[in-house]
Amino acid sequence: MELCVEIETLIKKAKAAAPKTAAAPTAVKNNAILAFAKALGDKEKIILAENTKDVEAGKNKGLTDALLDRLTLNPQRIAAMQKSLHEIVALPDPIGQIDQLTPRPSGIIVGKMRVPIGVLLMIYEARPNVTADAGALCLKSGNAVILRGGREAWHSNTILARLFQEAIIENNLPEGALQLVQTTDYAGVTALLQSQAIDLVIPRGGKGLIEEVMKHAKMPVLKHLDGNCHVYIDDEANADMAVTIAINAKTQRFGVCNAMETLLVAEKIAPNVLPKLAALFAEKEVELRVDDQGRYFCPKARAATEEDWYTEYLAPVLAVKIVSNVDEAITHINRYGSKHTDAIVTENYRKALQFLREVDSSSVMVNASTRFADGYEYGLGAEIGISTDKLHARGPVGLLGLTTEKYVVLGHGEIRR
Amino acid sequence: MELCVEIETLIKKAKAAAPKTAAAPTAVKNNAILAFAKALGDKEKIILAENTKDVEAGKNKGLTDALLDRLTLNPQRIAAMQKSLHEIVALPDPIGQIDQLTPRPSGIIVGKMRVPIGVLLMIYEARPNVTADAGALCLKSGNAVILRGGREAWHSNTILARLFQEAIIENNLPEGALQLVQTTDYAGVTALLQSQAIDLVIPRGGKGLIEEVMKHAKMPVLKHLDGNCHVYIDDEANADMAVTIAINAKTQRFGVCNAMETLLVAEKIAPNVLPKLAALFAEKEVELRVDDQGRYFCPKARAATEEDWYTEYLAPVLAVKIVSNVDEAITHINRYGSKHTDAIVTENYRKALQFLREVDSSSVMVNASTRFADGYEYGLGAEIGISTDKLHARGPVGLLGLTTEKYVVLGHGEIRR
Repeated sequence: MELCVEIETLIKKAKAAAPKTAAAPTAVKNNAILAFAKALGDKEKIILAENTKDVEAGKNKGLTDALLDRLTLNPQRIAAMQKSLHEIVALPDPIGQIDQLTPRPSGIIVGKMRVPIGVLLMIYEARPNVTADAGALCLKSGNAVILRGGREAWHSNTILARLFQEAIIENNLPEGALQLVQTTDYAGVTALLQSQAIDLVIPRGGKGLIEEVMKHAKMPVLKHLDGNCHVYIDDEANADMAVTIAINAKTQRFGVCNAMETLLVAEKIAPNVLPKLAALFAEKEVELRVDDQGRYFCPKARAATEEDWYTEYLAPVLAVKIVSNVDEAITHINRYGSKHTDAIVTENYRKALQFLREVDSSSVMVNASTRFADGYEYGLGAEIGISTDKLHARGPVGLLGLTTEKYVVLGHGEIRR
Repeated sequence: MELCVEIETLIKKAKAAAPKTAAAPTAVKNNAILAFAKALGDKEKIILAENTKDVEAGKNKGLTDALLDRLTLNPQRIAAMQKSLHEIVALPDPIGQIDQLTPRPSGIIVGKMRVPIGVLLMIYEARPNVTADAGALCLKSGNAVILRGGREAWHSNTILARLFQEAIIENNLPEGALQLVQTTDYAGVTALLQSQAIDLVIPRGGKGLIEEVMKHAKMPVLKHLDGNCHVYIDDEANADMAVTIAINAKTQRFGVCNAMETLLVAEKIAPNVLPKLAALFAEKEVELRVDDQGRYFCPKARAATEEDWYTEYLAPVLAVKIVSNVDEAITHINRYGSKHTDAIVTENYRKALQFLREVDSSSVMVNASTRFADGYEYGLGAEIGISTDKLHARGPVGLLGLTTEKYVVLGHGEIRR
């Protein structure tokens, strides 16, 4: 009962703040973010002390080393948060931009204005820096945001959100522009996900979290599910380039969504590249799971099963399949892939164009590593996530993905005949 | 059981057709639409005979005159369908357009390609012309579409869809590119709405239909709900222009979503415009529901209740309210409106800009009638509907609203460091 009252108050405040945040001038939004960045430095000791409470509690709860690492703040990481806030300040403000103003035969002039979405809900896991960077992206894009961090980062998120809110109030923005949910109870999340006043929810974390949010959310979900990415080495590929890209796409980092999970190799070039790749992957301790035809070139490899074509390993494991040509590669990717990021390596112009057009993924690449699918690499600035949805925002989502457009009509007294 | 098998076959065919439709050249899509337009003329007699069966059945079932009128085809209406198909052919093909190709510091070149959404489901009511124009818009935008028309138009839709499908097959496009659901059973609709293979559903019809679709759909819904539109007459308005726009916005047509439903008048200008408006609306037999302050100027009018501010009458009824200034007008619109279309009449530059920025609706206008919110008036060509959602497509939805974008990356062998 108390919980519901608290959540309702929070939502009401956000909804009341949204029009004011939407109308706020760029300088005001930037000043609030800069004031928060400054506070991160001024209050470093307090922040680290609060963070230590979380880390100690995490150790007692037996969190894995990886989770503890993601949870931990230190002066370098606080400096990195400040840097990323300054980068967000430096981004052009999309809100209020008017595009394509075009006079119509009736006399009216019609265009589109870029506007905030309204009230956003961010649900995320242990990394406390999300409180800073996601908060700043939502504010810069003129939205009111409700943040719901993981319970492991409770103390860290609380101090960060308090400092951010102080910076916001100092700059005469409403405190409802950025709020942290004051409970770690899951029932609170469910109540938020039922609200008609929230325009979009952005879950950021593991698959379990995202599926839970999808199950309960009554509003659109900007979500990132699997990254089952492919590299296809065409028979007209430059063999050295193909090997370099395949190795980079798989091994530059293993646990990331834009790493390659299945390698497709054209029949004709397989003798040229597969033995070399098998040796290099063995050096990097990547386990290969290869179809029957491919095992001719790497006989020691384990046989791939149907299941492997669907799998996002996020680990040093790679599925490998021989295909007869680009058509078969495209069909395989569209059937088994997750519509995240897929690349072709080829010197053939026509096949490059065909692959770009026909692969139905959020990022489609020619002669580049799938690891480039990233907001910074694409020039979006900080990213709020990578969307595998087809509507609204697709691929890496930056500031623009947190906005929408409305029509504006400039008239001179026109009426409809 | 048979129903489920039939629906599943339909969905499978659409899904298999989607990549082929997506890759189809512009000329092929246009030729199929032109062949269908020609068939409408060649087979006019058969079409009218089939339509007569629907109209007779409708009369026996006691359909209203309005519904019978919407259901009826005649040579003029078939010619209008042909004209609208030719207009769709004349629209530029958005599919495959690549925008913003930009070299990045890493060397890769990043841009966005316009692509179809995939498999669309259109659910609509009695008008058989939707089978033609919605079908053509979906095909032109490279999507595979499943059409589910109302049972009242069963024979008409069946012959139209058959002719369209023949035109599609003649042009070597897959028959799954356009299919009509072969059942009028509602259970079939529910099965369709649960399908993971359908990317977007577009209901077109009354509020009951749309709410039913929203309740059951597992995929995004491109929907059009209420049009509770406002005109605000500012104290710095040109009084003659204000009167002309208000009369046009309310009375040019009553039953349309972009008609004005509430008139807001600035206190200072009310003595100037309200008595004149009251007389003109009386002439046009529009019933006014006016707040206390406003009734001073039109004492015979009925008193407005809180309920009136929320109401989309779609009838010769208008709510009228005096507000003190533009701020109060904006607050009223954002609170009671339906985010459809709202207009200000003013000669003041600052207030015009403020209204454009702060009113949170899909179309915001200065000195123009709300009746202009329309795909043709905006230059989109044929429209598939007007969206009151905030994400994906907002306002009048034309061809572009049936598409999405993906990132394309052109590399030269780049890898991530």
